[in-house]
Amino acid sequence: MRYFDDFVPDETIQLGQVRVSEAEIVEFARRYDPQYFHVDAERASASIYGGLIASGWHTAALCMRLLVDGVFADSAAMGSPGLDELRWLGPVRPDDVLVGRMTVLEARPSRSKPDRGIVRFRAELDQRGETVLRFVALGMFGRRP
Amino acid sequence: MRYFDDFVPDETIQLGQVRVSEAEIVEFARRYDPQYFHVDAERASASIYGGLIASGWHTAALCMRLLVDGVFADSAAMGSPGLDELRWLGPVRPDDVLVGRMTVLEARPSRSKPDRGIVRFRAELDQRGETVLRFVALGMFGRRP
Repeated sequence: MRYFDDFVPDETIQLGQVRVSEAEIVEFARRYDPQYFHVDAERASASIYGGLIASGWHTAALCMRLLVDGVFADSAAMGSPGLDELRWLGPVRPDDVLVGRMTVLEARPSRSKPDRGIVRFRAELDQRGETVLRFVALGMFGRRP
Repeated sequence: MRYFDDFVPDETIQLGQVRVSEAEIVEFARRYDPQYFHVDAERASASIYGGLIASGWHTAALCMRLLVDGVFADSAAMGSPGLDELRWLGPVRPDDVLVGRMTVLEARPSRSKPDRGIVRFRAELDQRGETVLRFVALGMFGRRP
């Protein structure tokens, strides 16, 4: 069980990996981001992307799943107030395998609520050695009792 | 059909609204963000949120859907390099109705690619008059031929 007190600045935590299928890309995008380059392979092939790509929100959600499985599920996580510097650095295509990484940037106890602290961290997804997604988020975590 | 050239700084575009059900909150979170306060109503009732809340990534995806339906679908949208200042300002709960809004902040032609421009915009979701989600994103749009 990981508490606020267990996050050490500069620590990098390797997360798992996930393969994303064309069916999942289309299913997510039909529901939440039905732009043609996410849902229509034929029209997408004539776009600047040259083929179907995942919605950036889908890519971010896949990163969150790796964060939850690797860190948050077995922790005192209490949600997040937000994030910054989210960058979609490269397209994610059907059958890509995404590898996750979390780097702790800062850990500061809450001033107003002594039972918790805020962890600022960078999350990244790599595909064949190139980073395709990066963001810097805040996470609230309970302190070790 | 909305092109880059049609985005005017300070313009606010009212988007539609969407109701989010408990079933959809749990379904999204089981797949992408299975923290207990998103998937387990009973345990969530003992959390700081006092009940089940939507994953922040789900809320953002719902905002994206309103953006696509209201603006992007009938436009020359070409994807996004990223966003900043994403803030989850309040919890989204089952049966909440979220109302979207997009405000154009800046529109600048691309220096390297004359066929497109970058629109910087703020997206917001309100629930009962209170803003629960806000972010500032970049969108690439083709120029009017």
